[in-house]
Amino acid sequence: MRIVINRDDTKAVYLQIFEQIRQQILSGELIPGFTLPPERKLAESLGVNRTTVLNAYRELKAEGLIDSRVGKGTIVLSYPDSELSNATHYEEPVWDHTFSQYSGQFDPFMLKELLAIANRKDVISFATGIASPESGPLQIFKGIEEEILNSNDYKALLHSPTEGFHSIRESVCQLMHKRGVYCGIEEVMLFSGSQQCIDIMARILLDPGDIVVVEEPSFFPAVQAFKSLGARVMGVPMDDKGMRLDILEQLLQRYRPKFIYTMPNFQNPTGLEMVLERRKGLYELARKYKVFIMEDDAYGDLSYDGMPLPLIKSMDNEGYVIYISTFSKSVYPGLRLGWMVAHKKIVQKCTALKQVMDIHSNSLSQWIIERFIRSGDFDKHMKKSCNDYRIKRDAMYEALLNYAPHDLKWHKPKGGYYFWCKLPNGILASKLVLKAAEYKVAFVPGSTFFTSGEGEEYIRLNFTFASVPEIDEGIKRLCKAIRDLKESSDDEEAFNNIEMNPIV
Amino acid sequence: MRIVINRDDTKAVYLQIFEQIRQQILSGELIPGFTLPPERKLAESLGVNRTTVLNAYRELKAEGLIDSRVGKGTIVLSYPDSELSNATHYEEPVWDHTFSQYSGQFDPFMLKELLAIANRKDVISFATGIASPESGPLQIFKGIEEEILNSNDYKALLHSPTEGFHSIRESVCQLMHKRGVYCGIEEVMLFSGSQQCIDIMARILLDPGDIVVVEEPSFFPAVQAFKSLGARVMGVPMDDKGMRLDILEQLLQRYRPKFIYTMPNFQNPTGLEMVLERRKGLYELARKYKVFIMEDDAYGDLSYDGMPLPLIKSMDNEGYVIYISTFSKSVYPGLRLGWMVAHKKIVQKCTALKQVMDIHSNSLSQWIIERFIRSGDFDKHMKKSCNDYRIKRDAMYEALLNYAPHDLKWHKPKGGYYFWCKLPNGILASKLVLKAAEYKVAFVPGSTFFTSGEGEEYIRLNFTFASVPEIDEGIKRLCKAIRDLKESSDDEEAFNNIEMNPIV
Repeated sequence: MRIVINRDDTKAVYLQIFEQIRQQILSGELIPGFTLPPERKLAESLGVNRTTVLNAYRELKAEGLIDSRVGKGTIVLSYPDSELSNATHYEEPVWDHTFSQYSGQFDPFMLKELLAIANRKDVISFATGIASPESGPLQIFKGIEEEILNSNDYKALLHSPTEGFHSIRESVCQLMHKRGVYCGIEEVMLFSGSQQCIDIMARILLDPGDIVVVEEPSFFPAVQAFKSLGARVMGVPMDDKGMRLDILEQLLQRYRPKFIYTMPNFQNPTGLEMVLERRKGLYELARKYKVFIMEDDAYGDLSYDGMPLPLIKSMDNEGYVIYISTFSKSVYPGLRLGWMVAHKKIVQKCTALKQVMDIHSNSLSQWIIERFIRSGDFDKHMKKSCNDYRIKRDAMYEALLNYAPHDLKWHKPKGGYYFWCKLPNGILASKLVLKAAEYKVAFVPGSTFFTSGEGEEYIRLNFTFASVPEIDEGIKRLCKAIRDLKESSDDEEAFNNIEMNPIV
Repeated sequence: MRIVINRDDTKAVYLQIFEQIRQQILSGELIPGFTLPPERKLAESLGVNRTTVLNAYRELKAEGLIDSRVGKGTIVLSYPDSELSNATHYEEPVWDHTFSQYSGQFDPFMLKELLAIANRKDVISFATGIASPESGPLQIFKGIEEEILNSNDYKALLHSPTEGFHSIRESVCQLMHKRGVYCGIEEVMLFSGSQQCIDIMARILLDPGDIVVVEEPSFFPAVQAFKSLGARVMGVPMDDKGMRLDILEQLLQRYRPKFIYTMPNFQNPTGLEMVLERRKGLYELARKYKVFIMEDDAYGDLSYDGMPLPLIKSMDNEGYVIYISTFSKSVYPGLRLGWMVAHKKIVQKCTALKQVMDIHSNSLSQWIIERFIRSGDFDKHMKKSCNDYRIKRDAMYEALLNYAPHDLKWHKPKGGYYFWCKLPNGILASKLVLKAAEYKVAFVPGSTFFTSGEGEEYIRLNFTFASVPEIDEGIKRLCKAIRDLKESSDDEEAFNNIEMNPIV
């Protein structure tokens, strides 16, 4: 339905509306049963008074062209016999069999309630996976307007190559050389965030029923991507050195998975750094069993106690390691830019698929970040970020020492974004979330990161988003909540004990 | 491998490099067989002279720790027995069985050669699907720097909701109301370009073997997306009124496809506008057979001879129509932003999948375009664009009238980006591409848009990218190329005739 108001016309506006709708009904353009927009909405979209639309509809009713029905709004009647369109004609699609086989695997609402708590203004949030917005490199926008407005090549605004601009692939090569990976430009590809890279890798490698091995616990959006393609995901437990290779090898022998997904640097959620010996062992297992390793290095740049250990990709001469990382943790997540370093056959296949998926990543973001790296400001910013986050990490560590009950266990991370804590016996993270919400502090319960639904005794605490005073206050509140639950669980236990020892 | 140069150290730089690599080999961090970076690359990444690296490598060789091998570069030897790592240990992954079943359907290189021709500086290109960069609304960047730098909410830089910011969904609702679709905000969702929307829709709706119906010819990246999920794609021929509904109904009866993909407004590639009667008929068929319609309206805003016809979505009270459109044709393609209007059950399912695919669309692009719509500048820009493109469309029409041979047929489009031409009998588009390249003019051959590989007698000409004088000159060149081929084909035909009539 479309209506054009001509303000220069001497004809009243309500009549203009009436005549145009009438014409569209008589011509059959508006079919019987069509619901006219509510008067208020139409008035808004035309920029006229509601009364004007009311008058137009009144005229249409007087001609027997439309009618109002409770619960259905204003409906076009059939013409010329003016018989009401039969209500049974209104039928929605059959939703039950509409969606594809694996579409039930996308679970959007898992964290929605939790984030609703965390985003409340008075809540101290350890639940996010982002840095404090204030610490972001706002300077990347300095001079941007002048450069774009005076630019003659419009590079930042038009299509870019599916693999990413040549210039940013070059810059990424240089970043990788500093990390000990001497890749060529043909092995580098940009993505709309590293999550897209994970999803594309899954789509080019996985058929339904294929097996993927992940650390247990692991980064759950990766697990969701694998499952959404019909893959079976198997978790390998970790100890304080990283993934347990003895168990991994058993899985490799028995199931021949398509690839192993791992985050060796400051893993999300555990904050753990996989030791060098495990990295080498993992690479050797991949070669032996001819299985790919997807090395997710989202946090590798954020090392607070000296240099990070060598990347598994730096050991890879053959092409078994698919390395991925992101600018979301180091620059801004809203720019949606991540990258991959992999064998060029993988890059070619990913390019072919990405062309179908979103053609290419945002050109403006590529241009902004390339400019940021080239100027040397990216390196400076990373140094500053590491300093800031080390201070925050230490603040959370101190606060835990000060306030935590003796039976709360944690690991002090050498880098990344998170503390991973084990709750005192009998305290469930799902209960603690609610109790903590009363004290206005939020975190993510550990079970979120387990493929098995286990992990109720763990919680993940982010230390980069809150300020130092908030960290202190937040940990104080959290520990209070834990003590509250401990007391009530002691009561419960006492109660249970009575129940279990009936008077005989 | 990682090396840190300390310029304050009194030790020579080459010795620092030597010792660090030595240490890493002895510790086992660099495993036997590991290829050291080429001297030039390492020198570059460390910011030292190549000679410095050469000297360090010489020392390592002297200790028997590394060795150079032709074709393999400089390799770490095994320690302590210094036995050369066996060359057969170097094994690439087995690529043959690496990729997923349908990954062969992504065909990246289809147009690569063609675009290489079209992008040469001296070539007049009718091959693109973009507007001339100069006509883009550069003003969208005015004031952006100040707003971002002075902003306190960092909205444009951080994560946004998966469905898109509330504010841009609201703005899109208003755009849709002007197009006669009175949707609510919960029916609107933003995507990283409309191609992503097509791909996501395919992924939530299609299982391998499912059938999708498209117009023949059709927008080929959509067809590729459907095929990449294992779908079978069936083409329905078009006449000058749009998709042939009689043939469509036969397909609907026989195959029960999952959905019908159509572009009723100024279709890519034909430029055709589906007539109103067909739109209504198509909607009625969708209801009758309970099949979804994906209505791609990429060009709906670009109508040059009056108002476009009602959208199929404007007839939809039940939820059978999934409407998609894009800001790539109207604003800038590099911003990667498109949208969908569909039943909220579809929006919810898409949200769940998009969360796994790329979390959300670029926040900065959403913020820029929302600002552009809200200010009223988007509407003004569209008016100006329609004027500019009408002039270019008319220029191409005039040029065709002036230069075309009598047996070249075309259709004058009422909107959109393209002329669709039927070549004289016997002229093949694949040959014309090469001949036209000699005359420095480029276009897309029609067969690209057919699911069947047919269409060799058609070509698609874009008129929005080139300037008016270039359009005149380019059509002149193209027609010369056609005449050249006609002459040689006449010769060939004469020759063939002789062959077919042997002297008996």
